Amino acid sequence: MQRSIATVSISGTLAEKLAAIRQAGFDGVEIFENDLLYFDGSPAEVRRMAEDLGLKIVLFQPFRDFEGVSAERLSRNLERVKRKFDLMHELGCDRILVCSNVSPETIADDALIVDQLGALARAAQQAGVVAAYEALAWGRHVHSYRHAWRLVDAVNHPNLGLALDSFHTLSLNDPVDEIASIPGERIAFVQIADAPKLAMDVLEWSRHYRCFPGQGDFDLARFTARVIEAGFTGPLSLEIFNDGFRAAQTATTAKDGYRSLLYLEEQTRALMERERAARRASQPLFTPPAPPAHVGFQFLEFAVDATTGAQVADWLGKLSFRLAGKHRSKDATLYQHGAASIVLNAERDSFADAFYQQHGLSLCASAFRVDDAKVAFERAAGFGYTPFSGRVGPNERVLPSVQAPDGSLEYFVDEAPDAPTLYESDFVLTDMNGPAEVGPLDGIDHVCLSLPADALDTWILFFKTAFGFDAEPSWVVPDPYGLVRSRAVRSRDGSVRIALNASADRHTAVADALDTYHGSGLNHVAFRTGDIFGAIEQFVADGVPFLRIPRNYYDDLAARYALPDDLIDALAEKHILYDRDERGGEFFHAYTERIGRRFSFEIVERRGGYDGYGAINAAVRLAAQAQQRK
Amino acid sequence: MQRSIATVSISGTLAEKLAAIRQAGFDGVEIFENDLLYFDGSPAEVRRMAEDLGLKIVLFQPFRDFEGVSAERLSRNLERVKRKFDLMHELGCDRILVCSNVSPETIADDALIVDQLGALARAAQQAGVVAAYEALAWGRHVHSYRHAWRLVDAVNHPNLGLALDSFHTLSLNDPVDEIASIPGERIAFVQIADAPKLAMDVLEWSRHYRCFPGQGDFDLARFTARVIEAGFTGPLSLEIFNDGFRAAQTATTAKDGYRSLLYLEEQTRALMERERAARRASQPLFTPPAPPAHVGFQFLEFAVDATTGAQVADWLGKLSFRLAGKHRSKDATLYQHGAASIVLNAERDSFADAFYQQHGLSLCASAFRVDDAKVAFERAAGFGYTPFSGRVGPNERVLPSVQAPDGSLEYFVDEAPDAPTLYESDFVLTDMNGPAEVGPLDGIDHVCLSLPADALDTWILFFKTAFGFDAEPSWVVPDPYGLVRSRAVRSRDGSVRIALNASADRHTAVADALDTYHGSGLNHVAFRTGDIFGAIEQFVADGVPFLRIPRNYYDDLAARYALPDDLIDALAEKHILYDRDERGGEFFHAYTERIGRRFSFEIVERRGGYDGYGAINAAVRLAAQAQQRK
Repeated sequence: MQRSIATVSISGTLAEKLAAIRQAGFDGVEIFENDLLYFDGSPAEVRRMAEDLGLKIVLFQPFRDFEGVSAERLSRNLERVKRKFDLMHELGCDRILVCSNVSPETIADDALIVDQLGALARAAQQAGVVAAYEALAWGRHVHSYRHAWRLVDAVNHPNLGLALDSFHTLSLNDPVDEIASIPGERIAFVQIADAPKLAMDVLEWSRHYRCFPGQGDFDLARFTARVIEAGFTGPLSLEIFNDGFRAAQTATTAKDGYRSLLYLEEQTRALMERERAARRASQPLFTPPAPPAHVGFQFLEFAVDATTGAQVADWLGKLSFRLAGKHRSKDATLYQHGAASIVLNAERDSFADAFYQQHGLSLCASAFRVDDAKVAFERAAGFGYTPFSGRVGPNERVLPSVQAPDGSLEYFVDEAPDAPTLYESDFVLTDMNGPAEVGPLDGIDHVCLSLPADALDTWILFFKTAFGFDAEPSWVVPDPYGLVRSRAVRSRDGSVRIALNASADRHTAVADALDTYHGSGLNHVAFRTGDIFGAIEQFVADGVPFLRIPRNYYDDLAARYALPDDLIDALAEKHILYDRDERGGEFFHAYTERIGRRFSFEIVERRGGYDGYGAINAAVRLAAQAQQRK
Repeated sequence: MQRSIATVSISGTLAEKLAAIRQAGFDGVEIFENDLLYFDGSPAEVRRMAEDLGLKIVLFQPFRDFEGVSAERLSRNLERVKRKFDLMHELGCDRILVCSNVSPETIADDALIVDQLGALARAAQQAGVVAAYEALAWGRHVHSYRHAWRLVDAVNHPNLGLALDSFHTLSLNDPVDEIASIPGERIAFVQIADAPKLAMDVLEWSRHYRCFPGQGDFDLARFTARVIEAGFTGPLSLEIFNDGFRAAQTATTAKDGYRSLLYLEEQTRALMERERAARRASQPLFTPPAPPAHVGFQFLEFAVDATTGAQVADWLGKLSFRLAGKHRSKDATLYQHGAASIVLNAERDSFADAFYQQHGLSLCASAFRVDDAKVAFERAAGFGYTPFSGRVGPNERVLPSVQAPDGSLEYFVDEAPDAPTLYESDFVLTDMNGPAEVGPLDGIDHVCLSLPADALDTWILFFKTAFGFDAEPSWVVPDPYGLVRSRAVRSRDGSVRIALNASADRHTAVADALDTYHGSGLNHVAFRTGDIFGAIEQFVADGVPFLRIPRNYYDDLAARYALPDDLIDALAEKHILYDRDERGGEFFHAYTERIGRRFSFEIVERRGGYDGYGAINAAVRLAAQAQQRK
């Protein structure tokens, strides 16, 4: 599959954009006219820049308000478009996007429009270029691709084709299946954009909230499958207007864009296989290894030094973790409680050390138990995430790993029957054969990360592509000093859940954590228990300080739910937060105070199939944490 | 007039909010329930905090989804509301806001609702409180105040009144005039919010984009006039859900809120006077002195040291400014060209010096020529802006001034006939009686300031209140590294225009300037000329470097407008940007390169009544400046 992107989708000068686009892996680029206008050099120089990079200029865009006009306006428009054809020759580009007219003065007469598009086609033929006619969702008369296709079909000229744009079609809930019956050679261009579903004016939505495939809510696989089935042989080209992308790092955004197309191809292929599509794909689609079947967190690894290591070990001890082993060749210690394993890594001159130097006490790696670590790694690397390998001692396990967007590591671990476990091969275990102490925690329920505001979409794409996770809907939570946007991802089996919090505001808890960590950081680790009241009683007795929740919260809880007074009192006494879902599932959760202004632990109990994270309680928690920060 | 604000309108903890609200001047406060839930202390403690501050808790809110429900649900709701009545007693608050039901299960039966609101009224009576029933714009069955009033009127009980909220009424374009005929004593509460007109879902619009009166687009004066005419005697209370306010400084937002109510009262009084309202105002409205009739910029004053002063003086010399005088008692120099006057202030241990220490080379003061400086000052001070007075030498003029939101000064200057001018009294003029040299510049056309993203609304309110300026619609401009929001204000006669640019993105030109200035700063000063081609020819000959505009811009200009080729070439050669309005008015403008990464000068020529700022060219200018920054 050829892959392309419009220059408007990323930040920077035109030269920066072209270099980043090529570097990310794209074959082609759409030149957005404004990027050319702002470029201090001739179109021929742009052509040379692209050629030197090995990048094909697949489209020049946009040309506006051509059709459905008076005869006098038509001749002015033909003059105008011919100037652009000249410019395209200089650019070395043979295709121009012509958007349906949005002017209130548009003449709503299909026969007239067919005539005028015919004139456009003949002018294009003379210039040796192709015009691709696109229905804008907010076009005055023509706003559906089906209408645009009827017009293009009626003109019936090789130099006029149809342009499809997933946003314009899916934003209107226009049915996509008819795309498959359009002759592939009459589809002159295909633009791809995802978007979150928003109840707003479609023009504003399009101009500011588009995003890469996999970051939004559209069923892009179906749209793309129909395009492929039509026999389209050109590139899939991203055209994303997004306020965040305009301000983000050029190279990062370009790479995310490329990955998002790979992901879309995988989703499209899967859909076509499910549908047993009668027609074969006209182009090969990216086929990565299937996502691993996750069976949970293997361990979380913290970068520590002697002081902070002792501090965290003390907390873990109070949470009834036991010292389970020492690493054979590194200054690393393993703590376990139930299925929850935590490694504290203080090894000098290691990756953890480098991470510690940059971020201080922090989560430097997460290990995921998968069915096949090698395949899981190949999938992540296939989506372009950077592999990592560190020093390994004799007989120790080599863990395949990739770098997450913040530079921390994600390890993949599998266990073969009858082979030593990872812990057996890498650690001297303290009581290998002794009976494991039984504590109240069962394992890691979820992990919550604090991210810079502009990194949320990048992380969502990371977990969707590299891990094959699903993303849940996002929500916005008020902190006393701003807003926090939160979105969770999870493995298909629910065994791994990661909540991502981001905030554009400077004084929220999320921003405070990012300042402390110099970049992205752990917000909290949630441990699962079957008896939260017992667990907290024990932990409090052992000296764990829990985050204090105001009594007013509990009085309101009593008004909202018909909970017995003694339960309310028990919750209030132990500072346990409560949520209930529509099917009666219940969530009990409490937070420890923060460890050195960094992260906290959460203790959670899920009853009756409750599947969320107590989002309704996030605001009271953030307020309590803000109070604690003061 | 009593003035109140809801705690949800500003950032911070409840204690911080109450203190800031009182400090800003409010008499009353609405307690938003979540603020109470997050407060780690009893409602009685909140009551004491408010009492200690001298603040009345005028409302507890919101109570949701009470009416239009099954009998069983009604009894649960009555239980629920009684718990809140108990809480209100502790709070010392006798009024609760009850919002119309938004549940899809609402029973759309007015008779049933009247019955159920009757039950609410009786429960309220028993508890000695008043329920204020409000139609939410997105209420399931009840969404207009007129419908809510019919229901309240039918219940006809002293403990149930109508709550009005300007957002809910004006967002639906509901006619407001009928408010005047509701008996004032039946209006239990009035909430005030402005908002920009946005084409989006009304719930999202309300939850995120409300703003203070004067910052948005609603005709709040008409709404408020009708409330006053109804005979309402309670407070006007701001209830603003705004993402920016949630993250902004608590004290600044509270002060802006108070000023916005003063401004609304002034606007309301003016409207009622114009309408010669038959009924007198039920409450006195704030009556500041009328805004001054502006007759232009008197001078702009830069904080400089010896080095930067020489640098700016050199630029001014090349722009044909003449050294017009030296200050009698300070190290300050006056430069003039046409009606444009610039003061370079290098006086040690002065306000300018302090400003220079903090911001470096910067615009530390602006002086405005007004008809009556004392009255203009009194207006600004009446809106709560901080007066400033500095050292004044013998026989020098005392200039009344207030501090702008960034701490720079705004002077008001008037001239009496036969009295010495400001320049004569304060400066030793160099060629008082000699012939003034004639240069190509006529005066200052406008000034453009770079602001932090969260300061734009504060500055809009500053110019509207302190100066009585009008604000033009805002627009968004792409910079290569993010977006810039721009909004201009102007005096009613158009003689003073100030454009305000703000950007939330970290790498835009606006953000770069703010970094350089450590806070808000001057973006550019635009000088007006009657002959831009001649002026630029002269300035270029004198060594002024102009910002280079790409040739591609001019090729597109030729395609867009039917401009003769030689004009296009002349524009391109001199790097002059061009715009044309719908009535044929034309705008020619060019920017100098930046002076030490700080500000630039712009030369503008307006023809045929062109009244804008060439907004269409902002993107190409920002791109050229970004190129220059590299």
